Amino acid sequence: MAVYTHIDDEELITFLKGYEIGDLLSFKGIAEGVENSNYLLHTSAGYFILTLYEKRVNADDLPFFIGLMDHLYKNGISCPEPVRNKSGEALGTLSGRPAAIVTFLDGLSISHSSPHHCEMLGDGVAKMHLAAKGFALSRKNSLTMKDWRPLYELSAGEVDTIEPGLGHLIEGELNHLENNWPTSLPTGIIHADLFPDNVFFLKGELSGFIDFYFSCNDMLAYDAAICINAWCFDDDGQYNQRKAESFLLGYQNIRKFSDEEKQALPILLRGAAIRFLLTRVYDCLNVPKSAVVVPKDPIEYITRVKFHQTITNFRAYGVY
Amino acid sequence: MAVYTHIDDEELITFLKGYEIGDLLSFKGIAEGVENSNYLLHTSAGYFILTLYEKRVNADDLPFFIGLMDHLYKNGISCPEPVRNKSGEALGTLSGRPAAIVTFLDGLSISHSSPHHCEMLGDGVAKMHLAAKGFALSRKNSLTMKDWRPLYELSAGEVDTIEPGLGHLIEGELNHLENNWPTSLPTGIIHADLFPDNVFFLKGELSGFIDFYFSCNDMLAYDAAICINAWCFDDDGQYNQRKAESFLLGYQNIRKFSDEEKQALPILLRGAAIRFLLTRVYDCLNVPKSAVVVPKDPIEYITRVKFHQTITNFRAYGVY
Repeated sequence: MAVYTHIDDEELITFLKGYEIGDLLSFKGIAEGVENSNYLLHTSAGYFILTLYEKRVNADDLPFFIGLMDHLYKNGISCPEPVRNKSGEALGTLSGRPAAIVTFLDGLSISHSSPHHCEMLGDGVAKMHLAAKGFALSRKNSLTMKDWRPLYELSAGEVDTIEPGLGHLIEGELNHLENNWPTSLPTGIIHADLFPDNVFFLKGELSGFIDFYFSCNDMLAYDAAICINAWCFDDDGQYNQRKAESFLLGYQNIRKFSDEEKQALPILLRGAAIRFLLTRVYDCLNVPKSAVVVPKDPIEYITRVKFHQTITNFRAYGVY
Repeated sequence: MAVYTHIDDEELITFLKGYEIGDLLSFKGIAEGVENSNYLLHTSAGYFILTLYEKRVNADDLPFFIGLMDHLYKNGISCPEPVRNKSGEALGTLSGRPAAIVTFLDGLSISHSSPHHCEMLGDGVAKMHLAAKGFALSRKNSLTMKDWRPLYELSAGEVDTIEPGLGHLIEGELNHLENNWPTSLPTGIIHADLFPDNVFFLKGELSGFIDFYFSCNDMLAYDAAICINAWCFDDDGQYNQRKAESFLLGYQNIRKFSDEEKQALPILLRGAAIRFLLTRVYDCLNVPKSAVVVPKDPIEYITRVKFHQTITNFRAYGVY
């Protein structure tokens, strides 16, 4: 949950005078996103989300994130639409923080995905990849393969407290990834954090994507690999072949993978598993015990790494 | 902020099938109240607040709290209206917790009160006191004068770490209060926690009261004393005579104090100051440093106690 900056009613009313979204009727801090403070606004023009960007977000990246939402929305992707103020700006300052208002997006994050959800996700991700083409700005991924070893080294001495042998497992993976990571796959803008929290469904349809604060330029198939790890394993850690096949089918109905992308799937899945394992390990070892945000469990990503190590051929993932 | 219990989308959809408030379109945890988990629901019938009652709230008190909101709403007081399910019940069970849905109330909690706000508050509190008459249930105040010394004794050894001499100050006050606390003033149902967080204003009018989870039967003038302490001191700790006069004027326009109530105001104000000083001292000494809820500062209530000690005649508060 996330409300780090307290907003004063008078400050907010003054801030909203710069917008054409009517009079403020109510505002409430909401528990969405872990990097920023989020408020639900009710005005005479409707419901909106106000985000104050906290220090963990690099302010230089904000034009990319907000511009991307605007670009995707205008190109038919359901996501929050940034609201421009009377000066035409989508980014302002409130309570000493960069601040943006976006439209309120209905929809529910699902707790248990079905193969059909995964197929709709694949369809939506591929459409987002195509819609992002033509967006003028770019942003380097701050968690590429080359960043993983330095991130690991911050926790190297302690990782075995999470699970004995974990350090050995990670080091072996890093060696393998550094020697085999693809370099010539098609790139574009990826969401890079499409966990179930960040995808809404409504009335049996995918109704929107939120939380673009890891978006960046990287290999498109790597985004698909992140999704497969996040959506296509069951609660008991078992790989669910039907979900993965459905996801890949949904994706390829919109955008076909090249042969090279298909062959790279096993290594991309191992990389995507290590990337989230490493941030979870770091958070788990570094977040204070009674902190606001409960760190996500790294164990489920250890299971994914070990599963992917057993796969030698991309066809095993059900990609055709 | 408060979201202690995670709700699963499927559980919530099933729970809502018991109500006639349409289909679920969205739900978000909100940062309101410190005792319970609160969610904003958007359904095809509108916006609602869903509350899950956590362990700090005694489940036996819930029929009183929810029944009181219902009674007040039906008697013209603007407050959340409990929504009954298809069986006619306003209290259900969700995620293993007692749960209730109430209507969404617009309005803003103000950060800086004016004398006019205080007059509107006085008017509203008196109307609430009158409207609560005829409510069939009753609830003993769990923080009466007799509860203060046992509460103090839980922190007695440590209070001087907050301010040197604080223990001596509190003990002197408790002796004075125990010897002088009124016993025959008019009683009724009081809100007992009318801080600015719990009162909404909109378009220059008081638009509603929320958070009835300290409501109980006690002296009506004691509720007024809690309000004066909460609303009629400036940010620098100075008593603001104009605000207090405005509050008392607003109150007495609706419900006149008896002579006995007026004469009791000084002792009630000292008692109301000690009651919040003691809970803040306890929270301050017992809440983990990195907890979700930041304890409120006890210092401002030390200032209030010291101010009230200087007053010998009720007329000094501007009550006529």
